[in-house]
Amino acid sequence: MPISKSRENCKIVVTMGDPAGIGPEVTLKALAGVRRNRRTAFIIIGSARHLRRLGRRIGLLYPARLLRDRRQIASVREGLFLLDVPSPSVEAVTYTGVQTTAARAAKRYIDCGARLCLDGICDALVTGPISKEAMHKAGVPMEGHTEYLAALAQARFVSMMFISRRMRLALVTRHLALQRVPGALTVGRIARTLEQTLDGLEQYFGISRPQVCVCGLNPHAGEGALFGGEEATRIIPAIERVSRRYPRALITGPLPSESAFYRAYHGGCDAVIAMYHDQGLTPFKMVARDTGVNVTLGLPFVRTSPDHGTAFDIAGTNRARAGSMKAAIMLARRMVLSSEKG
Amino acid sequence: MPISKSRENCKIVVTMGDPAGIGPEVTLKALAGVRRNRRTAFIIIGSARHLRRLGRRIGLLYPARLLRDRRQIASVREGLFLLDVPSPSVEAVTYTGVQTTAARAAKRYIDCGARLCLDGICDALVTGPISKEAMHKAGVPMEGHTEYLAALAQARFVSMMFISRRMRLALVTRHLALQRVPGALTVGRIARTLEQTLDGLEQYFGISRPQVCVCGLNPHAGEGALFGGEEATRIIPAIERVSRRYPRALITGPLPSESAFYRAYHGGCDAVIAMYHDQGLTPFKMVARDTGVNVTLGLPFVRTSPDHGTAFDIAGTNRARAGSMKAAIMLARRMVLSSEKG
Repeated sequence: MPISKSRENCKIVVTMGDPAGIGPEVTLKALAGVRRNRRTAFIIIGSARHLRRLGRRIGLLYPARLLRDRRQIASVREGLFLLDVPSPSVEAVTYTGVQTTAARAAKRYIDCGARLCLDGICDALVTGPISKEAMHKAGVPMEGHTEYLAALAQARFVSMMFISRRMRLALVTRHLALQRVPGALTVGRIARTLEQTLDGLEQYFGISRPQVCVCGLNPHAGEGALFGGEEATRIIPAIERVSRRYPRALITGPLPSESAFYRAYHGGCDAVIAMYHDQGLTPFKMVARDTGVNVTLGLPFVRTSPDHGTAFDIAGTNRARAGSMKAAIMLARRMVLSSEKG
Repeated sequence: MPISKSRENCKIVVTMGDPAGIGPEVTLKALAGVRRNRRTAFIIIGSARHLRRLGRRIGLLYPARLLRDRRQIASVREGLFLLDVPSPSVEAVTYTGVQTTAARAAKRYIDCGARLCLDGICDALVTGPISKEAMHKAGVPMEGHTEYLAALAQARFVSMMFISRRMRLALVTRHLALQRVPGALTVGRIARTLEQTLDGLEQYFGISRPQVCVCGLNPHAGEGALFGGEEATRIIPAIERVSRRYPRALITGPLPSESAFYRAYHGGCDAVIAMYHDQGLTPFKMVARDTGVNVTLGLPFVRTSPDHGTAFDIAGTNRARAGSMKAAIMLARRMVLSSEKG
């Protein structure tokens, strides 16, 4: 859905993620670097006490101005801000791994950030990492940010895109046992992922004649149906359908996934579409760690996140690298500005 | 099986592959660069007429000495040689894609090369690319070099390893429809691949305390059986079994495949084990094209090949890059010399 309103300033909400993980640390570190951007307000959503304590622990300045409510958020123009969202017992969270208190707090930050974006007060949501396991133990049904935000926004279909300096990747299926992947690959799902990718490339990246490579499902993309037939029955029909609807796009495939990623890595296309999680994320993360950003397409607002998890094992030790979080924040800003131009 | 004989010289057989593909071209180009190696005889197996014609066409010198029979091969010590293997109508092969005549000729070269190695006359077999489709059309039942050579050598179990400057990769399953992968992953198959990899690292690369990363099958290696359970029922038992048998090896896994390849790519392990074709070859080839080498472990001789195909579309045009073939030849030589030292 295009963001048609044209405003002077851009407001980016950043949820600090699970307090027991590295989310708060990478949030502080990333925003220490980007807070001087003009025409942009960065608003952290989290616990002021937790962040202050963490700031002291790792020796990081903490120059955010505290905001009290939505009205204040609506009125700010540029700089670094913090919306303090109270959550029971969050001050008792320690850096010792999965804690249900931390998970419940993390959920509040997401709910609050998503609401600000859905109500048009903010333009983009950048989410710090949460733990599926902790959410599960806390009784919060959340398969992941992507699915949860899709439900909140009542989006019928969302796509997960990963972006690094070298490539853009979209996944047709996400967190699914490998055994269930072939059955989940319908023509409709492949086509919708492809369409959402093409729309995203145009809206957020200004690419009006996109070149996209689509992976096959089987080794060598089936090598003429020698191994598996999903290329002929699912992938080719989807490509043909979308090619008719998007005559300006150049869609190539199904390609052996090694060829598709070789091209993507060497600048030969604007995006690559993988059929399942490991097919896409194994090559992507091998070369993109610390710069990779996860983007959700199909929401009524821009949403990005770093491509790493809570990393409980190093939380609170000042060892987390904020490159991916910083990239997520800056990409969100570029996407908002690019979509306003259109 | 260790090569225990200690000889002064090393003999590498190189089959030129499908005459209609780029195999003959990369063979000539690669050997133009390596022919001065002392203590090594490189013996091309193919068609003398075809190679001469190709050499004229692409302006490449063709300095191989012609050998007539096995006795002559046994007597040579170093330099570049050619064993001319006659094949019906091979002079009629053109650079126009799949041809059954070409496929039948390619099969003869493989049979001849494998025989020389199985009989102990030569030490290593480097195979130029063939076309499965052409073999199929010619009525030659050949799923690929690996399977064919395993049958010729009566090897019970072979593993496919891929080697580049950045990493070594072994595959548990190879050319299998994705749908059939979970069912094919038995504890025995995973364990044998792991053992053959550990043996190979020691025998051919002199690594006596190998560190190996094993990928999971499902996203995030199943994330605690949240997606699929093969990690717990197949992969972990295999790792435990092999860890007991190889107390000096450090086997880590099952890891999310993106973590395993990140480590492998950044020098954090000696080899990575992938469960299926695309999981391994997508990241491998993305960064290794033109230096990647395919190695078969479990044969009674060293066998390598370039990691590309026949590339019929550019055959005969002098555009093929010989980096991978050259790497395959030099790796075969190093593997022979390393295994003789042991």
